[in-house]
Amino acid sequence: MQAAVTERWDGLVVGVSLATLQGTEGYGEIADAALGWHDGRLCFVGPRSALPGDARDLADEVIEADGWITPGLVDCHTHLVFAGDRAREFELRLQGASYEEIARSGGGIVSTVRAVREADENTLLAQSLPRARALMRDGVTTVEIKSGYGLDFDSERRMLRVARRIGQQLGVQVSTTYLGAHALPPEYAGRADDYVEAVAAWLPRLHDEGLVDAVDAFCEGIGFSPAQTRRVFEAAGALGLPVKLHADQLSDLGGAMLVAEFGGLSADHVEHTSIEGVRAMAAHGVVAVLLPGAFHVLRETKLPPLDAFREHGVAMAVATDCNPGTSPLQSLRQAMQLACTHFRLTPAEALRGATVHGARALGLTDRGVLRVGMRADFVQWRVRHPAELCYWLGGDLAEAVYVGGVRLA
Amino acid sequence: MQAAVTERWDGLVVGVSLATLQGTEGYGEIADAALGWHDGRLCFVGPRSALPGDARDLADEVIEADGWITPGLVDCHTHLVFAGDRAREFELRLQGASYEEIARSGGGIVSTVRAVREADENTLLAQSLPRARALMRDGVTTVEIKSGYGLDFDSERRMLRVARRIGQQLGVQVSTTYLGAHALPPEYAGRADDYVEAVAAWLPRLHDEGLVDAVDAFCEGIGFSPAQTRRVFEAAGALGLPVKLHADQLSDLGGAMLVAEFGGLSADHVEHTSIEGVRAMAAHGVVAVLLPGAFHVLRETKLPPLDAFREHGVAMAVATDCNPGTSPLQSLRQAMQLACTHFRLTPAEALRGATVHGARALGLTDRGVLRVGMRADFVQWRVRHPAELCYWLGGDLAEAVYVGGVRLA
Ligand SMILES: [Zn+2]
Ligand SMILES: [Zn+2]
Repeated sequence: MQAAVTERWDGLVVGVSLATLQGTEGYGEIADAALGWHDGRLCFVGPRSALPGDARDLADEVIEADGWITPGLVDCHTHLVFAGDRAREFELRLQGASYEEIARSGGGIVSTVRAVREADENTLLAQSLPRARALMRDGVTTVEIKSGYGLDFDSERRMLRVARRIGQQLGVQVSTTYLGAHALPPEYAGRADDYVEAVAAWLPRLHDEGLVDAVDAFCEGIGFSPAQTRRVFEAAGALGLPVKLHADQLSDLGGAMLVAEFGGLSADHVEHTSIEGVRAMAAHGVVAVLLPGAFHVLRETKLPPLDAFREHGVAMAVATDCNPGTSPLQSLRQAMQLACTHFRLTPAEALRGATVHGARALGLTDRGVLRVGMRADFVQWRVRHPAELCYWLGGDLAEAVYVGGVRLA
Repeated sequence: MQAAVTERWDGLVVGVSLATLQGTEGYGEIADAALGWHDGRLCFVGPRSALPGDARDLADEVIEADGWITPGLVDCHTHLVFAGDRAREFELRLQGASYEEIARSGGGIVSTVRAVREADENTLLAQSLPRARALMRDGVTTVEIKSGYGLDFDSERRMLRVARRIGQQLGVQVSTTYLGAHALPPEYAGRADDYVEAVAAWLPRLHDEGLVDAVDAFCEGIGFSPAQTRRVFEAAGALGLPVKLHADQLSDLGGAMLVAEFGGLSADHVEHTSIEGVRAMAAHGVVAVLLPGAFHVLRETKLPPLDAFREHGVAMAVATDCNPGTSPLQSLRQAMQLACTHFRLTPAEALRGATVHGARALGLTDRGVLRVGMRADFVQWRVRHPAELCYWLGGDLAEAVYVGGVRLA
């Protein structure tokens, strides 16, 4: 587990316990451990006793610490770039307002689309930064951010540019996903196929600007049909871009199977995915992204086919789905808590879901596990046991957050 | 709404919106407002336009701000002083362990009692401080802390001393509650009446040391009987101490009625309280303390009689119940979110529950509302609407927390 020491390392933490997440289950625990890094990569992961020499001689900075270190959390499904909020709509619902009344009061996704279209880039950035900061403060080092509230070329582009700027400004690793096919904008009412053509036409232009890491769509009765989703996926495939999908959330349209057919990264939500869908996901290595925040807020009762995922070896990721309408979560740990409470995931499954499987859902193989050669993205937590990360609602548990060996928070 | 200006105020915030919570419902909202304080008390609460002169001439410090100011949050039911944690037990349950296996692995309340008995005062303080700090960071300015994991004189005393020290060290306002009758300690097995006598005998000694603000008990089939609870309440009454009760959580033993009979402050949990209990609470001004964290974690389905509370005018408080077994919450905002999601409280009800009604549940009449003469305990939030306080899970929303006019966090 050790690398040859050719020069002094940049940093070394000793004395902590590590949840390396090596292996296929459990925490991959190492007690009284040491973690060293150099040039943004891990160069030592093992028991302190296995350090090749005296700690002081090995690294420029040596930190004696306790608690636990896990890989940096990977939030693989968010819509955190948006303007405005929908708290008033949340309140109206709790006051017993009907959907009509909420729509009349300007609620729903169209209200977010309107706010995003009206916001210039700096406004959108200023409103989105605190959400990314809150995620990081609770241990997130890689965050996926989707477009999908612009629904015209300029606004989708602005959202993706803001996503990139969040990464530059905060130092968090950002993965962008183009979700033009999120909803039908009012100007395309009754012309969904035309809108999908436009979405497909915008993609290469956004890709040219380096704004797109993956492509997503909302495949649902109230979203886009499987045929329309296929059209979007073909456009992605033409550019060599990986796909993922809002699949089978409210009904089974075969979304998970469609992702598998395209060799996609992940099928997300998947509450209504059939056993055939699970088999197809397993056969093509598609990750199931569980989003318990929306399940909680919408008070859903239909569980994803968790046992089938386990049985067929489908990796389960856990993400916040941070969005203003159905999943107002600003903490991946809270999503892990909800995954344990509502979905009965074990804490180790939830932690794997928010690290190694989250990374896989983004096609990233250089993070999510503590192993020599991986990115030095890790979190030192003030806990006695890693299950505490899923146990506490609230709390300020992250002592230090490192991205590429740089301490951020 | 203004006080006469006899001298310069200590501080003045202008430009924010206020949720004063004056009146009996809604937010008691004031837009483009000003909030001034002097000597730890509010001396101005109103629209900026009503300020008696130029802001700069009125106060030593003038803060231009946006967002919203609410009263400081009051967490009126916590067990946050304890040692150890029960995350491993949480994990075992999710791994499918039986209650026997958990008990054999050293779980359950007895494990917390053992850890508290073994911890010296400084250890107990060191382990408890981060939880109090996390609550404050999310807006809590007054916190109730119960004993009840010591279950012998010295250990109960140590818990209450630690509760007081948390207040001194962090500046947060602490209300202590003696909960000797929380569980039967092993050395009293089969002698519950004897234990209750001991609990009653310890009370005056603890009270003499200034450690007790109120007295509580756990009245339940698996706790203490109504007759035993009555014995504890009589001991409290003899000292003029107010009572409150863990009442009707798992079954209806008439706990709420017992609190009413003793003119107590609050009946807490109250999932199984009967309509007669509700009427008795209303008649005697007993607050219903809702604890949605335990409801969430235990995945309960029996709701408290919320409509009956509303109909009969019983004030509903919301608290974290922060404890290692059934409600690992370190944020009162998360309890508010759970109260909205699981109990369908409106955000305004949840906010009143965590401020003015929480204060009432502690017998405190000098806080929980923004009004001239009240304590200058308030929170400035980075939100556009107060419903956001109940809407977000996670997030770092508190911009500034003031206790008695002193900025703490
Ligand atoms: Zn989504
Ligand atoms: Zn309690």
